[in-house]
Amino acid sequence: MSGGSREPGRSVTSRVMAVLCAFDADHRRLTLTAIAERSGMALSTAHRLVRELEASHALTRDPDGRYHIGSRLWELGQLAPSRLREVAHPWLQELFAATGENVHLAVRDGMEVLYVVKVYGVNAVPIVSRTGARLPMHATGVGKALLAHEPDGFIAAYLTRELERPTPHTVTEPGRLARDLAAVRAQGYAFTSEEMTLGSCSAAAPIIVDGRPIAAVGIVVSSRRARELPRLVEPLLTGARAIARAYGVDTSAAAP
Amino acid sequence: MSGGSREPGRSVTSRVMAVLCAFDADHRRLTLTAIAERSGMALSTAHRLVRELEASHALTRDPDGRYHIGSRLWELGQLAPSRLREVAHPWLQELFAATGENVHLAVRDGMEVLYVVKVYGVNAVPIVSRTGARLPMHATGVGKALLAHEPDGFIAAYLTRELERPTPHTVTEPGRLARDLAAVRAQGYAFTSEEMTLGSCSAAAPIIVDGRPIAAVGIVVSSRRARELPRLVEPLLTGARAIARAYGVDTSAAAP
Repeated sequence: MSGGSREPGRSVTSRVMAVLCAFDADHRRLTLTAIAERSGMALSTAHRLVRELEASHALTRDPDGRYHIGSRLWELGQLAPSRLREVAHPWLQELFAATGENVHLAVRDGMEVLYVVKVYGVNAVPIVSRTGARLPMHATGVGKALLAHEPDGFIAAYLTRELERPTPHTVTEPGRLARDLAAVRAQGYAFTSEEMTLGSCSAAAPIIVDGRPIAAVGIVVSSRRARELPRLVEPLLTGARAIARAYGVDTSAAAP
Repeated sequence: MSGGSREPGRSVTSRVMAVLCAFDADHRRLTLTAIAERSGMALSTAHRLVRELEASHALTRDPDGRYHIGSRLWELGQLAPSRLREVAHPWLQELFAATGENVHLAVRDGMEVLYVVKVYGVNAVPIVSRTGARLPMHATGVGKALLAHEPDGFIAAYLTRELERPTPHTVTEPGRLARDLAAVRAQGYAFTSEEMTLGSCSAAAPIIVDGRPIAAVGIVVSSRRARELPRLVEPLLTGARAIARAYGVDTSAAAP
């Protein structure tokens, strides 16, 4: 614990992190008051920390007075190693080059999917996922592909929860969702149709390493082009298998 | 200034940032001692901050005891808005899809180029640039494209410095470099041949908005395929102009 704190038991570092973590994919720009509220801090403490973080380019102030995460944190974040992102990158690119569609990579984070890579071209249908965003598993292609390959106990626990319903097409009835997931597991990939966003549908495949789904690759197209999804399954599965193979190779052991 | 500090005048926030900024593209994994040294802090202070940052997932400890930037900072970094990255993304993807080559986007940062996006497929030639990395301007295609479009005074100042020579092919003689840059400015794009890395060569074009070079797009190929570079100039220039156009559109004014 550092001296001078009015909140004993909470280190200054953890308060700095609390200020930063007030920001998320749904709260990308915040007023000072919102930062204080969301980080559970007195306005004066938040104000001092924000001012110091601004001086370090960790936060940046907009002309309207709101703050957002600054370029220095983007740069630092780029240094976080990710074997998954590194191994998947070229395959996601090839998948994009072969299909010209929205391609993304997501992992399970608790009961949600976290989007870690998103690739799209100039003709992409606008979609809600963005890198760093979290979405419900049962409403997204990547989420279903991941959920279907979790152990039965995990799926059962997932289905007992109150399930979000982003569109009228989202399947939330536990019995039907369980049957859907069994079908996904049997066929090795998932389809969704306007279950997360009206106007778009998707195909997704899990990346299975040592029998566990470590991530999923998805392709999202406009609903007007839904009939083209089946022909995208083959390149999708090829990409997912290639990433699994590349990830599964223990590079430390492979080096002579 | 926060209480309890043994280094008066330095806020705890700035010390937290100093610990994080001990990491960079050339120092991605550091021991505790190296962190203390690079951040100019007593070992005991560094130790406490590192422990706290580890608890917040801002730093992660490797099995060998070294630390690296953690996934939480990657996530936070993803929230930093970048109009340039956002506008450029789909065009960089199209350029990759059209050429199948290493494509990247870089900006000038002081006297260096900072790589902000890097796109590559499974057949890419290995290159030194990585997202978040800085390289000398005169030795890289993107750097030359940017430098050539800076004001004469800037170029003159650049040329008076001691210039790094990563390979025997790097042009460091001020007179020759000045002529090279004049040629780049006249033709609107730059070529390099093994000037940063033996075995690879590049073509790059500046993204000019309101007469200023805000970034550059580059394509890197294996030196064995150097003769193919000229045919990549047209898609490269098309991409650079499309990004400039998209970036130049003031979206706040465009909204009705």
